Amino acid sequence: MSETPMTSMSPMSPDAEPADLQREALRLDGADKLADRRDAFVLDDSPETVYLDGNSLGALPRAVPDRLAHVVAHEWGSMRIRSWTESGWWEAPERIGDRIAPLVGAAPGQVVVGDSTSVNVFKAVVGAVRMAGEERDEVLVDATTFPTDGYLAASAARLTGRTLRPVTPAEMPAAVGPRTAAVLVNHVDYRTGELHDLPGITAAAHAAGAYLIADLCHTAGALPVELDARGVDFAVGCTYKYLNGGPGSPAFLYLRREHQAAFDSPLPGWHSHRDPFGMTADYAPARDIRAGRVGTPDLLSMLALEAALEVWDGVDIGAVRDKSLALTDFFLHCVEQYAPPGRLECVTPLDHDRRGSQVSLYCEDAEPVMAELISRGIVGDHRRPGVLRFGFAPLYTSFTDVERAARVLGEVVG
Amino acid sequence: MSETPMTSMSPMSPDAEPADLQREALRLDGADKLADRRDAFVLDDSPETVYLDGNSLGALPRAVPDRLAHVVAHEWGSMRIRSWTESGWWEAPERIGDRIAPLVGAAPGQVVVGDSTSVNVFKAVVGAVRMAGEERDEVLVDATTFPTDGYLAASAARLTGRTLRPVTPAEMPAAVGPRTAAVLVNHVDYRTGELHDLPGITAAAHAAGAYLIADLCHTAGALPVELDARGVDFAVGCTYKYLNGGPGSPAFLYLRREHQAAFDSPLPGWHSHRDPFGMTADYAPARDIRAGRVGTPDLLSMLALEAALEVWDGVDIGAVRDKSLALTDFFLHCVEQYAPPGRLECVTPLDHDRRGSQVSLYCEDAEPVMAELISRGIVGDHRRPGVLRFGFAPLYTSFTDVERAARVLGEVVG
Repeated sequence: MSETPMTSMSPMSPDAEPADLQREALRLDGADKLADRRDAFVLDDSPETVYLDGNSLGALPRAVPDRLAHVVAHEWGSMRIRSWTESGWWEAPERIGDRIAPLVGAAPGQVVVGDSTSVNVFKAVVGAVRMAGEERDEVLVDATTFPTDGYLAASAARLTGRTLRPVTPAEMPAAVGPRTAAVLVNHVDYRTGELHDLPGITAAAHAAGAYLIADLCHTAGALPVELDARGVDFAVGCTYKYLNGGPGSPAFLYLRREHQAAFDSPLPGWHSHRDPFGMTADYAPARDIRAGRVGTPDLLSMLALEAALEVWDGVDIGAVRDKSLALTDFFLHCVEQYAPPGRLECVTPLDHDRRGSQVSLYCEDAEPVMAELISRGIVGDHRRPGVLRFGFAPLYTSFTDVERAARVLGEVVG
Repeated sequence: MSETPMTSMSPMSPDAEPADLQREALRLDGADKLADRRDAFVLDDSPETVYLDGNSLGALPRAVPDRLAHVVAHEWGSMRIRSWTESGWWEAPERIGDRIAPLVGAAPGQVVVGDSTSVNVFKAVVGAVRMAGEERDEVLVDATTFPTDGYLAASAARLTGRTLRPVTPAEMPAAVGPRTAAVLVNHVDYRTGELHDLPGITAAAHAAGAYLIADLCHTAGALPVELDARGVDFAVGCTYKYLNGGPGSPAFLYLRREHQAAFDSPLPGWHSHRDPFGMTADYAPARDIRAGRVGTPDLLSMLALEAALEVWDGVDIGAVRDKSLALTDFFLHCVEQYAPPGRLECVTPLDHDRRGSQVSLYCEDAEPVMAELISRGIVGDHRRPGVLRFGFAPLYTSFTDVERAARVLGEVVG
């Protein structure tokens, strides 16, 4: 362990002692307006454990086990097929979408839950390209994207006869032009934790007549998104990170209301038909958010997600953002105190306007370092090459967690 | 109630009394080699209830609630992200696929679980068309198919520049030709319960150089399919009917081993990458069954399915077929005794070789008839126009159930 500050990693004062930082953590926890939310989650590990991987898989909300047991025993086991109508199964994708909507700045009726993020990226890119018309022959994709978005965008471009052009998010405003059909961008870079300028990129796309598709996997539930206000056309996101829906819980798709009637899905399953039980040979899409559905959704995963979303009742997403920034600031400050200088390099922007809810630290031996951290109860993850990722879920991460994690990290790399 | 026989509906002797049929049901139940399987399911409704909608949503296997509770509390709640490796989450799609494989006549390593049936139809049709090459410009689709298959096949044809040609399964052997890239056929017609000649259609497709894609939604778990032996190229199916996986449980995709290295998925998500954690910008597909995966799968639904599949341990699918035919024969016989002549018309073939595991009866007022049946505890469903559907799940349906259902049906239509 070292008390020498890490080079310019945080704007805070250096040279604090562990006892000072622990006191500061307790003070911050005491002032935390979201502190009571922690009780809504199952976090009964040993006191040594700090879970900082909620940006990969959110912790279990306490409401889930009983709700899911009821769904299985009563809705499936006893009511069986009647639950499609009597337990509200059929409408679950839109109903749960409407619970997510306020967290991403969407009015009701524009978010539907189902399928994986990858599948929803495909729907959104093909849908956007078709709306843009034949003369727009390229799709811009975030070159730093989580790979699956790029793979699916490439497939969508190939199948619709467009060219895929990877550019960095910073280059997007200059790159978008009259040939651009759609722009697909991640709101936060999964590796560095950088928050991209979604409003600016959206405005540039619209100025060029292109559609904007946002991937919100790393921002839904972590910070305000303002889809409606910013004019975003399409958005996708997963629900198992900051939304705590459980492993592989279904993704969501945002279809801006004005685009719903024209949305021409490449996956026109019967659940998106305007009269699904008409069972007609001809396809006629629903002219509302149901146009984003495909086939029969995974109800058990979906209803677990619905229960998980109860933790957001009464929560102000602005307060979530404030706490997220305070957590990452405090983590950077503590790491600066505890880690040897030059040992770790922060690759997450220090500027609040460019930081998501994670901190990524570069070190050459990230893989063994993370393994050792995990063995000592500090759970983050690593991404090749050399990136230690720590996610901060404001609903259940405390400042005491943060100080402990930084202290153990300092020991491991010291 | 009437004891007059229905016109030529079954090959059995007419004019039995209810007491005779009830004795016969008890005798058949006593001789049923699968009778002990019923205890593996939750069927603790009132004794008046008979569930004949397992062809829409299978009953709850008793192993599911505890297993799912463990997954939620321990694997998600306590182990969290570590479960991706330590609880076998990552390999679940192939592992569970291998549990389904023997039920559809597939050797291991050719079935993967995930996504909806609709999404898997899309993967299979695009994949088959791409393998068939540019000069084959048409896709034959079962004109009597469950609509979603037709919708997705149409989308696949549109995106790959092919023409979709709907023909009946009976017409397929004559219709398939040198321009045909792929043939998509349902093994059983969801409405009539007719079992199509999959081996004959497959042989005709191959003789013409086309690929065969089978939809097994209504046969997986109901009768032997023999995918490997019959040379079927691709198959899809749901797991929530005769496989009892729960509402919207993930579908399966069969990719014949010889096609796996060439399979060019239209949904190349990161889970199908040969090095998913390499996180490379370039896509390189796995050359095995993992090529059929897309994004992060719904683990809760998937692991519930895994527990549900335990009911098949030690079950011979040939015995399942024998019982299925005995159940549907007995049902037809009982209906013939109990329903007024001419009131119901059987639209399911009487020929065993052409019958799935359901019986569909036509009557003009099917919707109110089914509503009344359900109110009296006899749960089937109806499909417009005028079809009463009764599904017979051989693992948990008894002959006593069957007699009771037919008797109440006779009362309702009498």
